[in-house]
Amino acid sequence: MTTSRKQFILGSLAATAGITLAPAHSFSQPLPARSSSRMKLTFEPYNLNLKHVFTLSGSSRTTTPVMLTRIDYEGITGYGEASMPPYLGESQDSAAKFLSQVKLDRFPDPLLMDDILNYVDSIAPENRAAKASIDIALHDLAGKLLNQPWYRIWGLNPDKTPDTTFTIGMDTPDMIRQKTREASAFTILKVKLGRDTDKEIIETIRTVTTVPLAVDVNQGWKDKERALDMIHWLKGKGVVMVEQPMSKDDPDSNAWITERSPLPIYGDESVQRLPDLFNARGVYHGINIKLMKCTGMREAFTMASAARLAGMKVMIGCMTETSCAVSAAAQLSPVADFADLDGNLLITNDRFSGMTIKKGKVTLNDLPGIGIKPI
Amino acid sequence: MTTSRKQFILGSLAATAGITLAPAHSFSQPLPARSSSRMKLTFEPYNLNLKHVFTLSGSSRTTTPVMLTRIDYEGITGYGEASMPPYLGESQDSAAKFLSQVKLDRFPDPLLMDDILNYVDSIAPENRAAKASIDIALHDLAGKLLNQPWYRIWGLNPDKTPDTTFTIGMDTPDMIRQKTREASAFTILKVKLGRDTDKEIIETIRTVTTVPLAVDVNQGWKDKERALDMIHWLKGKGVVMVEQPMSKDDPDSNAWITERSPLPIYGDESVQRLPDLFNARGVYHGINIKLMKCTGMREAFTMASAARLAGMKVMIGCMTETSCAVSAAAQLSPVADFADLDGNLLITNDRFSGMTIKKGKVTLNDLPGIGIKPI
Repeated sequence: MTTSRKQFILGSLAATAGITLAPAHSFSQPLPARSSSRMKLTFEPYNLNLKHVFTLSGSSRTTTPVMLTRIDYEGITGYGEASMPPYLGESQDSAAKFLSQVKLDRFPDPLLMDDILNYVDSIAPENRAAKASIDIALHDLAGKLLNQPWYRIWGLNPDKTPDTTFTIGMDTPDMIRQKTREASAFTILKVKLGRDTDKEIIETIRTVTTVPLAVDVNQGWKDKERALDMIHWLKGKGVVMVEQPMSKDDPDSNAWITERSPLPIYGDESVQRLPDLFNARGVYHGINIKLMKCTGMREAFTMASAARLAGMKVMIGCMTETSCAVSAAAQLSPVADFADLDGNLLITNDRFSGMTIKKGKVTLNDLPGIGIKPI
Repeated sequence: MTTSRKQFILGSLAATAGITLAPAHSFSQPLPARSSSRMKLTFEPYNLNLKHVFTLSGSSRTTTPVMLTRIDYEGITGYGEASMPPYLGESQDSAAKFLSQVKLDRFPDPLLMDDILNYVDSIAPENRAAKASIDIALHDLAGKLLNQPWYRIWGLNPDKTPDTTFTIGMDTPDMIRQKTREASAFTILKVKLGRDTDKEIIETIRTVTTVPLAVDVNQGWKDKERALDMIHWLKGKGVVMVEQPMSKDDPDSNAWITERSPLPIYGDESVQRLPDLFNARGVYHGINIKLMKCTGMREAFTMASAARLAGMKVMIGCMTETSCAVSAAAQLSPVADFADLDGNLLITNDRFSGMTIKKGKVTLNDLPGIGIKPI
């Protein structure tokens, strides 16, 4: 396990020296001229240390590599983050390469978010987490300039946040019981299924707790009829939703299950960015939106808004992340039917304080931007 | 023609007398307590007088009925409007009936826009223009509370507004020539086609001007192969886009045309609210978004954002409207490939000043909210 505080490569992109343009239009609230009137992007690789070994089908790890970003503008700092679990294909190297190409100093005004984020998205395909690290930092900065938290700019009610699920990782029965006991502060737990031991895992958890369970199959089920039987069985065990029952490449089977399921079915691997929403409608009841999949808060908000107006359900998820990216996602959680925002709770070396969980519920603060402070 | 200033029925919904709750969460910028801390909705029927008789296939009229709304809150007023051309099925009566059911005093905070607009949408089906009149007034109010114009809250670049089309209504050749000459301030004109005289109309306009033309067929063409031939011919005449070539109930023919067309094809009648976007993808290159079709700015922004992220083009249109609803739509126009925002220019009795057209271009001001002032 590499501890990482000492590992900084402070990849600073110095703002191009040159003339300072005033914004092209006047401000309703003129901003005081401070240290620099150009945005300056810096980034820093960081490794999250996990409290428990994290096991997915076929892989285990004890750290998650992330890239922390910041955008400085006139003395105000916006913070962002890319979380890059190895199986998703991005790395600190790929993120550094991408971020080195981002020239924010060409934009006179951080609030030209549409221009800036279209530009960032156009630099290279993929790099979704790296793009999210810019998007989040820019939202944090813009929210601070507007002096409002994003839930408020988006018109959302902070009292309507859902309770978050807390994930009980795959493990031995004894460890599952122990982890479940440790999670007694949560009102809903998430369980990873999709292997031969599914019923055993649920029964094991049920020896310890009666709270509702969310189930994430991660495409693990291979037969739609058996999947549906399992869903009926799970419902009897107090499961309240099922994520990605079968392969993302088999929409017909997933749709078949959704049509018949007594529990809401959410697409996760099937739904990365907004265009995937078009294919998810009719296949799933809802979608799991994660900032690291969809390039950040702008696209996440559009996906959530469009899904709801189209009559679909919305879940907000995360990777293993610091409170930076988790708090950014939490800004959107008032629209979510389910939240899976436990990424910051799974690590021992957070770098920010931000959203909190109170009696199981995602709890937003009044801080402008994404609602975080460095610690 | 009924002039309407004297016709007011000031349908005031007095705020329920009762206790005044503080907002459930604290504000980053506390609002000063002023005249009332409850929202109060009032509305007023108004008839727009048209400069020219307005002719669509099979109907003509010289006025357009609208409903002007306002929401007052702590001494700040948000303005809204419903425009209700008779063929769309709403009227001042239906709007008054709908608006009378809207109880905004149950909400402690105008910035809880998501809750408020979900509630408004749930009161009754349809009534899309009436719903838009609340949505617009609420956006105007919220923007004023945030002290920002909406293009800025949405992160859009006000310099990126397109030129607006100006519609040359159906008429005799002499009148078409005259109207075209009168429209010499515009850099792109819109022509309504879909009858036997299509080529004649284009030729007539081309005797007067060489500016690009947008063509709105309003479902008027009945044969896809002839439609495609016509589009090729129109391209040769400097037409740059075509709206709703065939019936909204014939997606296959519209898709067939889109696949082969040398000009971008936009759906209009096919695309009312957000769910229609799902059916429009693959059928049209783009969509024409109008606040009166889609219940207002919130859904319009979502539709525009989702369409663009899905690789579709966006056009922002309007009905005959005062500068209130047109200026609200103009806030979104920086994302549009085409704007058709001439509704306020077609009337003689505007009630607001707002967005302007400068050298043909939609021009946004710095006023907070939707950028208007009563006149």
